[in-house]
Amino acid sequence: MARTEPTDKGREQQRRLQMADIARLAGVSVSTVSRALSGSSLVNEQTRQRVAELARSLNYAVNLGAQNLRLQKNRTVAVVVPYEAGSRQHISDPFFLSIVGAIADALTDLGMDMLLSRVDAEHLGQAAQVLDSGKASGLLVIGQWRHHDQLNALAARRLPVVVWGAQLPQQLYCSVGGDNRLGGRLAAQHLLQLGRRQIAFLGDAALPEVLHRRDGYWEALREAGLQPAPELELAAPFEVSFAQQTLERFLRQHPQIDAVLACSDLLALQAIQVLRSLGRRVPEDVAVTGYDDIPLAAYCDPPLSSVHQPVAEAGAVLVRTLLQLMDGHSVVPQTLPVHLVLRASAPAG
Amino acid sequence: MARTEPTDKGREQQRRLQMADIARLAGVSVSTVSRALSGSSLVNEQTRQRVAELARSLNYAVNLGAQNLRLQKNRTVAVVVPYEAGSRQHISDPFFLSIVGAIADALTDLGMDMLLSRVDAEHLGQAAQVLDSGKASGLLVIGQWRHHDQLNALAARRLPVVVWGAQLPQQLYCSVGGDNRLGGRLAAQHLLQLGRRQIAFLGDAALPEVLHRRDGYWEALREAGLQPAPELELAAPFEVSFAQQTLERFLRQHPQIDAVLACSDLLALQAIQVLRSLGRRVPEDVAVTGYDDIPLAAYCDPPLSSVHQPVAEAGAVLVRTLLQLMDGHSVVPQTLPVHLVLRASAPAG
Repeated sequence: MARTEPTDKGREQQRRLQMADIARLAGVSVSTVSRALSGSSLVNEQTRQRVAELARSLNYAVNLGAQNLRLQKNRTVAVVVPYEAGSRQHISDPFFLSIVGAIADALTDLGMDMLLSRVDAEHLGQAAQVLDSGKASGLLVIGQWRHHDQLNALAARRLPVVVWGAQLPQQLYCSVGGDNRLGGRLAAQHLLQLGRRQIAFLGDAALPEVLHRRDGYWEALREAGLQPAPELELAAPFEVSFAQQTLERFLRQHPQIDAVLACSDLLALQAIQVLRSLGRRVPEDVAVTGYDDIPLAAYCDPPLSSVHQPVAEAGAVLVRTLLQLMDGHSVVPQTLPVHLVLRASAPAG
Repeated sequence: MARTEPTDKGREQQRRLQMADIARLAGVSVSTVSRALSGSSLVNEQTRQRVAELARSLNYAVNLGAQNLRLQKNRTVAVVVPYEAGSRQHISDPFFLSIVGAIADALTDLGMDMLLSRVDAEHLGQAAQVLDSGKASGLLVIGQWRHHDQLNALAARRLPVVVWGAQLPQQLYCSVGGDNRLGGRLAAQHLLQLGRRQIAFLGDAALPEVLHRRDGYWEALREAGLQPAPELELAAPFEVSFAQQTLERFLRQHPQIDAVLACSDLLALQAIQVLRSLGRRVPEDVAVTGYDDIPLAAYCDPPLSSVHQPVAEAGAVLVRTLLQLMDGHSVVPQTLPVHLVLRASAPAG
């Protein structure tokens, strides 16, 4: 990328800027700093050491030449994975971990570091502390949860923030996310093509991404001449600890269910386990689709049909978009394509 | 924790230390710094601004009182996941991701941040840059790979470093790891109890953790009166991209194999897929054990018997040990217990 290769001229300019900073802080002239850094005997040893220590302390790579101040500042990006205060849910969902891994890979490719922290989703504003303190110069937030307004408040402060999630009305911040409406629609259309008519939806539509997936599911139902049935929707959260009893009660109370559209692969796997415990076969009695297409989906029992999210690409696009924002360019929300991968849990018709 | 609550006396000491630093760097007296920071009119405006900017630049919370230099320095821990230069392998193994997640959780519980970076395993010394630059005040390295000597060199510099991995002879650095010898032994003993005698070992013994697992496997074989057979060992790396052809050739060339002891769950799942493609049933013809017991092991086809590594505990112990080291305490390598979880791929006998 052009921005990681400043011109010689730009480099020289940065170098002079840095020396001016050091001179100002040390209370000496720029030429003294220059002499001190070049080891000139015209500068006394005490001043030379003082300037060298300042240069080090301020993390200026004055003598490296190839690096510049702006680059130094830009080398760390903060990644925040919010947690719900109630559950204090740990980073356990393999999809969240994969996104974090993909961002780490994208940053590594650019020689940048990643500051990973977790913030109570009720107080997303705290995420700005890493920027205010200068520890990082850009912020990626993984997931919107229920906190669209707080994210808007961060963006209103003109902080460089990009959010993994859905694009919503009245959105001030930039988001990058999968095409959730398409994903929900593709899964539902496939289940309908398999002749299923009582399709349960597992996911909490209070979360924007899930809301859009449900929109897609509704669209597909209506196109097939069916009406969405609220009693077939279960607001299951993205948590490994999601109460198996709730899922069991739901599936037991609705024996007419002949398909399950789950909003994560983990939820799909839990549903399959409960369905089997109730004596129902997958996919013969109940076809099941997951969401995310985690790497292990192919090895599951049965192998899981799932909406594929482009994780590696997501990491690269999140980082690229944030760098553009940090560079003062305007950016627009991006929606990445998804596709349905068919395996045995809801096989090709 | 006591260390995050310094006494008033300690706080005052730290405060004085900070002012001495600033005074030295600004080339003024400590009393001038003190006056400048308290806004005294005895200090001229230019010097006052210079001192304030230095205090800010050095990230000293001089006026906050409640915070001290040491605390500031200690709030960020660097986590390095080395990659092999040849493959430039991305963070994809679910076990590595889980360890990173567990460390993030442990640091969050302490209100600390995590700086995640990846470093070429051939140049692990580069990992020290985050400490030298002051970006982080402690370092966790995930995995030793083949670079015991480089890790020793970091420890010889008296840098606060803790490594996830095996305990080796002539080790200067502190390691925390699972009991790999026990893990290899438990898996092999179980396969032997199932009556299997031609037990293949999948894992690259050039990696210290795998070496110890193989030691355990050898011990179990010898106890059963069997000799380790080098032709039944395949140096398979921890990579998703591990060539399926190599695995297929290996399993095809050794049709006598009646069990597979794999050094990761991912390797076990790949082996199961290849075995089935060769018309062999799991576990009837070939019993398979994995390693790590990732959360999805229970959902695999068939559900995977696996050596359980205590990931959440590992995150907490790594962080606790590093904090002790950063606090100047001496620490000793720790080995965490593992146990074998039995599922259908190598069921109870």
